[in-house]
Amino acid sequence: MKTRAAVAFEAKKPLEIVELDLEGPKAFEVLVEIKATGICHTDAYTLDGLDSEGLFPSILGHEGAGIVREVGKGVTSLKPGDHVIPLYTPECRECKSCLSRKTNLCTSIRATQGKGLMPDGTTRFSYKGQPVYHYMGCSTFSNFTVLPEIALAKIRSDAPFDKACYIGCGVTTGVGAVTNTAKVEPGANVVVFGLGGIGLNVIQGARMVGADKIIGVDINNEKKSWGERFGMTHFVNPTEIDGDIVSHLVALTDGGADYTFDCTGNTTVMRQALEACHRGWGVSTVIGVAEAGKEISTRPFQLVTGRVWQGSAFGGARGRTDVPKIVDWYMDGKIEIDPMITHVLTLDEINKGFDLMHEGKSIRSVVVF
Amino acid sequence: MKTRAAVAFEAKKPLEIVELDLEGPKAFEVLVEIKATGICHTDAYTLDGLDSEGLFPSILGHEGAGIVREVGKGVTSLKPGDHVIPLYTPECRECKSCLSRKTNLCTSIRATQGKGLMPDGTTRFSYKGQPVYHYMGCSTFSNFTVLPEIALAKIRSDAPFDKACYIGCGVTTGVGAVTNTAKVEPGANVVVFGLGGIGLNVIQGARMVGADKIIGVDINNEKKSWGERFGMTHFVNPTEIDGDIVSHLVALTDGGADYTFDCTGNTTVMRQALEACHRGWGVSTVIGVAEAGKEISTRPFQLVTGRVWQGSAFGGARGRTDVPKIVDWYMDGKIEIDPMITHVLTLDEINKGFDLMHEGKSIRSVVVF
Repeated sequence: MKTRAAVAFEAKKPLEIVELDLEGPKAFEVLVEIKATGICHTDAYTLDGLDSEGLFPSILGHEGAGIVREVGKGVTSLKPGDHVIPLYTPECRECKSCLSRKTNLCTSIRATQGKGLMPDGTTRFSYKGQPVYHYMGCSTFSNFTVLPEIALAKIRSDAPFDKACYIGCGVTTGVGAVTNTAKVEPGANVVVFGLGGIGLNVIQGARMVGADKIIGVDINNEKKSWGERFGMTHFVNPTEIDGDIVSHLVALTDGGADYTFDCTGNTTVMRQALEACHRGWGVSTVIGVAEAGKEISTRPFQLVTGRVWQGSAFGGARGRTDVPKIVDWYMDGKIEIDPMITHVLTLDEINKGFDLMHEGKSIRSVVVF
Repeated sequence: MKTRAAVAFEAKKPLEIVELDLEGPKAFEVLVEIKATGICHTDAYTLDGLDSEGLFPSILGHEGAGIVREVGKGVTSLKPGDHVIPLYTPECRECKSCLSRKTNLCTSIRATQGKGLMPDGTTRFSYKGQPVYHYMGCSTFSNFTVLPEIALAKIRSDAPFDKACYIGCGVTTGVGAVTNTAKVEPGANVVVFGLGGIGLNVIQGARMVGADKIIGVDINNEKKSWGERFGMTHFVNPTEIDGDIVSHLVALTDGGADYTFDCTGNTTVMRQALEACHRGWGVSTVIGVAEAGKEISTRPFQLVTGRVWQGSAFGGARGRTDVPKIVDWYMDGKIEIDPMITHVLTLDEINKGFDLMHEGKSIRSVVVF
């Protein structure tokens, strides 16, 4: 079949909207009509050529929502008409990782996914007879795409696609880091570094679970009202305080935060996030993705005196199990998404979405097909 | 009253055995007759002048066992005749830390303890009219010593002092890191870096909780039989393998260890211990104390992909609550201590104990009064 898609033909060039050939789903695969897709920093990271493992030509996009249109042989959990969110972190429920009960990082199709291929080692997309790579196993910048059954979360059919798509990455990454990874408890004091699309979702996750102080840290004062919109109780601009940010936060939290989250990707900030934790029990969770080659450091004394340094990917969420619950939380009003969708674009306008992100003008731009 | 004690009059000098004046217990304080005391690396660290906060003259020793001889006003949990283990990490059960339920690092008397003083800001020891400092709130190198009530664990009276004293530091630090801090579960794969007095206790802690592979790592091949004695299933000498130690251990554990423990204090080893953890859930616990100024580093990717970096002090044990249980475990044969006590000395021979430790000839030397 044919599908319209925004194709990344090479790094550092705008996406091109073209009509591609798409092969139908093979065994254990599913054809999905994407109805909406967010544009995320990770797409820009790859398009900008910063990802050394980035492949071209490829179809980017990993934050989508759509409808199942056809299922391949052996698919039992989905049928045409089901509403789904594509999962860049699949959930096979059979690999060592899934069966460990300790991680969401399913490894069953990791090798081929990292190479831009379906599990059988081929692509479903082609352009003028040449293969076009998949991206993060999703390729939601295509109107139609094919995914493994294990990489699709079935969601309720009354959730609007242009909001639910954000649960495919940003919302789950932020909210899940609070609920699944850090397991923040009611009454806890939380510090969130970086109030972008992820940080705001950490904030509303902390609000949802009943955190006490929710302190947002950002060098951009315009983020203050954004943070407050989602439950932030205190705002700190590190460039506008006397003394260092760690001491300031330790004082503000009466000895240190119970939980801190880095949503900046800056390794200096990651260290501050750890050291702003309370002696004895503070837990710091790294969410942001650092530049290649950058390292985090601290004195081991910080750990020996009870601080924990950990990380979170896709909010620690098992895609097929937890993503539908987060959709419920949104539909039940426990979390908000609508105000974060600052721009809605057509596929033809997709490059504008990247510009808005680079200019810091959007929290999230969504392309609606 | 008078007491014999080994006094550290200044750094880098042998201890001197002298008779001191000891004031009796004030309110909420307890006079203890020390029956046996271990000699630990931390005592040597201070005596060697490496601890920038070390105070002289002082009475070192923090790994003891003895008998209550007198209690001060207001003491309700102890009476003369009770057998006790002094606690350098007290347990007041009233401070923010104790009430957090998340840490053993009681802060109630931290300020004065760090200054070598009792909670009222004075010392009980004096020599020729000049005050002599307490050390880690214990000073077990004195035949009689005074401690706050909250810094004494009451233990069963049938436990031999010359073995129970080791529970005052080394045993609890190692075994507790497994049971309290890492919470190793049956069937887990464990890697222990450094097979000294702490590492061997980590090994037997892992054996006690039913770990599967228990891999010991040490550059000294003589430690192999020591490790095996306490439950180690595999020994790795990093200087005798092809390739790097992390890859070797990841292969040996089918993807990485579930739990690793650094018992070396070497920050390079701490990094290896983290990176030898399994993607998705491996937890690395730092126990060793690093040289002043040294830092640990890693790529944040290690954390984002699910490894956890944490530390443990005094094995995460609440002294008054958990230490008596560890004494029970020893008396019930769940853990061993006897073979680790390689040397028994008199107080007059105490400097020999330091020599044996520096020469690597002892696992633990114990002074019996």
